[in-house]
Amino acid sequence: MPLEPSKQLDTFENPKPERDYEIDLECPEFTAVCPLTQQPDFAVVRISYVPDRLCVELKSLKSYLWSFRDEGVFHEDVTNRILDDLVAAIAPRRMTIVTDWRVRGGIHTVVTARHPR
Amino acid sequence: MPLEPSKQLDTFENPKPERDYEIDLECPEFTAVCPLTQQPDFAVVRISYVPDRLCVELKSLKSYLWSFRDEGVFHEDVTNRILDDLVAAIAPRRMTIVTDWRVRGGIHTVVTARHPR
Amino acid sequence: MPLEPSKQLDTFENPKPERDYEIDLECPEFTAVCPLTQQPDFAVVRISYVPDRLCVELKSLKSYLWSFRDEGVFHEDVTNRILDDLVAAIAPRRMTIVTDWRVRGGIHTVVTARHPR
Amino acid sequence: MPLEPSKQLDTFENPKPERDYEIDLECPEFTAVCPLTQQPDFAVVRISYVPDRLCVELKSLKSYLWSFRDEGVFHEDVTNRILDDLVAAIAPRRMTIVTDWRVRGGIHTVVTARHPR
Amino acid sequence: MPLEPSKQLDTFENPKPERDYEIDLECPEFTAVCPLTQQPDFAVVRISYVPDRLCVELKSLKSYLWSFRDEGVFHEDVTNRILDDLVAAIAPRRMTIVTDWRVRGGIHTVVTARHPR
Amino acid sequence: MPLEPSKQLDTFENPKPERDYEIDLECPEFTAVCPLTQQPDFAVVRISYVPDRLCVELKSLKSYLWSFRDEGVFHEDVTNRILDDLVAAIAPRRMTIVTDWRVRGGIHTVVTARHPR
Amino acid sequence: MPLEPSKQLDTFENPKPERDYEIDLECPEFTAVCPLTQQPDFAVVRISYVPDRLCVELKSLKSYLWSFRDEGVFHEDVTNRILDDLVAAIAPRRMTIVTDWRVRGGIHTVVTARHPR
Amino acid sequence: MPLEPSKQLDTFENPKPERDYEIDLECPEFTAVCPLTQQPDFAVVRISYVPDRLCVELKSLKSYLWSFRDEGVFHEDVTNRILDDLVAAIAPRRMTIVTDWRVRGGIHTVVTARHPR
Amino acid sequence: MPLEPSKQLDTFENPKPERDYEIDLECPEFTAVCPLTQQPDFAVVRISYVPDRLCVELKSLKSYLWSFRDEGVFHEDVTNRILDDLVAAIAPRRMTIVTDWRVRGGIHTVVTARHPR
Amino acid sequence: MPLEPSKQLDTFENPKPERDYEIDLECPEFTAVCPLTQQPDFAVVRISYVPDRLCVELKSLKSYLWSFRDEGVFHEDVTNRILDDLVAAIAPRRMTIVTDWRVRGGIHTVVTARHPR
Repeated sequence: MPLEPSKQLDTFENPKPERDYEIDLECPEFTAVCPLTQQPDFAVVRISYVPDRLCVELKSLKSYLWSFRDEGVFHEDVTNRILDDLVAAIAPRRMTIVTDWRVRGGIHTVVTARHPR
Repeated sequence: MPLEPSKQLDTFENPKPERDYEIDLECPEFTAVCPLTQQPDFAVVRISYVPDRLCVELKSLKSYLWSFRDEGVFHEDVTNRILDDLVAAIAPRRMTIVTDWRVRGGIHTVVTARHPR
Repeated sequence: MPLEPSKQLDTFENPKPERDYEIDLECPEFTAVCPLTQQPDFAVVRISYVPDRLCVELKSLKSYLWSFRDEGVFHEDVTNRILDDLVAAIAPRRMTIVTDWRVRGGIHTVVTARHPR
Repeated sequence: MPLEPSKQLDTFENPKPERDYEIDLECPEFTAVCPLTQQPDFAVVRISYVPDRLCVELKSLKSYLWSFRDEGVFHEDVTNRILDDLVAAIAPRRMTIVTDWRVRGGIHTVVTARHPR
Repeated sequence: MPLEPSKQLDTFENPKPERDYEIDLECPEFTAVCPLTQQPDFAVVRISYVPDRLCVELKSLKSYLWSFRDEGVFHEDVTNRILDDLVAAIAPRRMTIVTDWRVRGGIHTVVTARHPR
Repeated sequence: MPLEPSKQLDTFENPKPERDYEIDLECPEFTAVCPLTQQPDFAVVRISYVPDRLCVELKSLKSYLWSFRDEGVFHEDVTNRILDDLVAAIAPRRMTIVTDWRVRGGIHTVVTARHPR
Repeated sequence: MPLEPSKQLDTFENPKPERDYEIDLECPEFTAVCPLTQQPDFAVVRISYVPDRLCVELKSLKSYLWSFRDEGVFHEDVTNRILDDLVAAIAPRRMTIVTDWRVRGGIHTVVTARHPR
Repeated sequence: MPLEPSKQLDTFENPKPERDYEIDLECPEFTAVCPLTQQPDFAVVRISYVPDRLCVELKSLKSYLWSFRDEGVFHEDVTNRILDDLVAAIAPRRMTIVTDWRVRGGIHTVVTARHPR
Repeated sequence: MPLEPSKQLDTFENPKPERDYEIDLECPEFTAVCPLTQQPDFAVVRISYVPDRLCVELKSLKSYLWSFRDEGVFHEDVTNRILDDLVAAIAPRRMTIVTDWRVRGGIHTVVTARHPR
Repeated sequence: MPLEPSKQLDTFENPKPERDYEIDLECPEFTAVCPLTQQPDFAVVRISYVPDRLCVELKSLKSYLWSFRDEGVFHEDVTNRILDDLVAAIAPRRMTIVTDWRVRGGIHTVVTARHPR
């Protein structure tokens, strides 16, 4: 079955829930659309988490990030949305999302959001 | 007037046609679609040329590269098409196009085409 | 409406005020004038903050940094002024300003100011 | 006697058990098989530990890592298994295992597990 | 159909045979077996060529490189064999194969073979 | 006498005119104004030359580059103008000017002009 | 008035004494003489401090560092003397001096002293 | 008097015993012999300490490290011995020894020991 | 049979004598003795060659380089001797030897010798 | 006999005059005085040559470079003088001198002179 863009995040059982351990995922192929200018934006998305009962499945994560390709998103908002969606899907013990955006107007922007707190 | 994806390449007069000099443009925000899997592909596009009578205008170059965002393209083919389109638009004395693609299947691909020959 | 140098800092609503998260902005195109020699000085300005109710809008930030282009500023003073102006505009929960200056007299200077404390 | 793949981990006496000190081992030649696609996966394995009474012998560690060459393993699971096997063999005071995997589907994965806790 | 190790190299038509252009492929996931010690060896394989009528298809290239996983090969020999096999499959105008091997006995080996001559 | 922006380029006698040797000057503090948007542009200017009878004096070169601070200049044009002005001032045996501009619209531009030819 | 080597350290008023902020100065052009061999030694000197009422003026700092050019100094001693002299001159809230020396006898030495404590 | 390999570590008076400060020494020219294979091993030795009443003299440190050239040593053991010898010679307030060894059997080893504790 | 230092260079048959190809060997673990001071010297040795009928066997190369461990050698001389010995052993079509020595007296030395000519 | 600054360049016999080979010397510890401001200047000096009958002895080269410590020298002039002095001393088949100077007035200068021509 071919991969498609999708907001659906699949999960699998954490193979070692009795231990706190970290999973770091770097996804350098994120693109969305600037809602003000309708022009494409590009970012590297970094996801770090300590799983509780569930881990996020990588193919569905790829489809999830792909699903923003034609959406208009603000940098701050989309970072928090990715965090909210992943927290809703896998309820990690801890999670950090970093979005690192290509220069716009001579300014390089990085947004970092953490769960909990 | 807002920027839009477009295959149109605008030009301006070379301010110094009596001298051979080089213009190097690095465009790290290129994305298209794999024609086999329909999944997004990402590349850095590097354009180097010696202008003759015309130079390529940067905003239209940005729109031009943007116009591939929803097209299915093969790596080898699109590199040669970008070269052909730019040669058709500005007839440079010399031009090199390099497309440097994100890893697929564990393989990192770079395609380099030159005009003339 | 064309962009102009301006001390005005525009803001927008923090899309996620219920969460502490960081926004890092690197602005490598800062220039001002040395008040002693009247010669140009160049710096990279780095701004990191945790927004409260407001975020700083990037175009106005660009205009704000541009507004120092013809002003005579001391390294230590301008760093604190940028911090004071941004704190006045958006009242962040935390903010750090770093100015990283080109070598003068064989000495490379970096100034770092934080709010609060 | 030629080296062979083996799950056996040999040990030697810690020459300085009265002091807490760290041993860091970087093993860039780890390969296993993806259990879903049966295709080879590649990783760098980093092992850091504070020995108690025993240290792990390097030739047997090499054979141990080699023993995964034809096994189907999930990234999260194998990281925890390597940690469990090494803890069982040498009962270190502290140990960290990092597996740093080659890009798959445009995503770079790193898994980090620590003992105790 | 799942990917399998195979010495078969598939090809596709060069989309621009009337132009000399270069295709560079970096494959950092090559492993084979040392014929003397039966221990695994690891290398990065770099392939650069100017296609004539045919290009090498990437999935089959991946299967081809995978097919050496359980074979005993000498560094110099396998580099020349990869070059011979690729030349036989696609008859490129020019081709270079580089194999860059992990340190053995404190020595780092790189082998480079070119066609023609 | 304080330094001021000036198109005047001072020179000094080449201390070794009987030998061809190279002088490379990297000037990372160049700024001018985009003639279309009136916004500041930033570049690194690199000057390499083989002197004939004269060398360019560094303080006057600094004033010369400073003199573009409030001028509207196109990338291609200003590169050729700097070359023309320096050739007029010191008539070098060979000279290369490289201007390396900060990213605009996601594109990084470098312009290289050489004398003679 | 031309710059001269001098142990005199000039100061200026801290423009923001109500805030703790850091000033980092990297001075890569330090040279002195080895008191044992009378041969020149070279170091990078790094100065970081939080000013209280006074900041150190950069031209006088340059003269101060220059004043060691013909003095015989031991690495450990001169690092502490620079710290003592700067603390005497500006009474900073916190200060760190790092001296990073060129290799002698195959050994690379770095000395770091902090005030207070 | 020519330098010779020697286990003797000479010292000199700490010029500033009233202050805690750090001395970092990087010695990239360490070689010894593997006690199992009798083959040479190579390491970078890093020594960091806060002196109390005494500092280690560099020429004698060089002779000391040289004295291992023909000795068979295990990585973990020699790291702790260097720490013990230096602690015996200068009784530092704090000291860290790092030995960073060339790859053996595809594994890169670093050993770190600290005093006290 | 254990490895020993030896001036003997073993060889094996070039598996592809009909093609010119390059073998590059980097040996970062070379040490010898300075004939003037009797102190150890350290270098990286790089060997590049195009084999004719014979290739150099790596274990014997390791023993060969090891055999200089207790010899007094001048930088320029030993570079040429290594080249002469390897040319005598395998008669390569082309060979380059580079020795890259650790800093002595503040000077970093690299010696490069080529055969033929 | 202690080392002293001296314009004397000692030599030794080229051990392999029948072969063209290169000696590269990097001397990062060069300092002299600016003849206009009397302030210290710092440079890295790189010397590459193919010896004929003589090589330059390193201790005397160190003394020679040291002899400029209190001299006022212009960048272009001293580069050519070093070349002339070395050519006079050892008559190399080919020689290149590069002086790479610390930033002055925001400009980084490198001077390169070659013999012959």
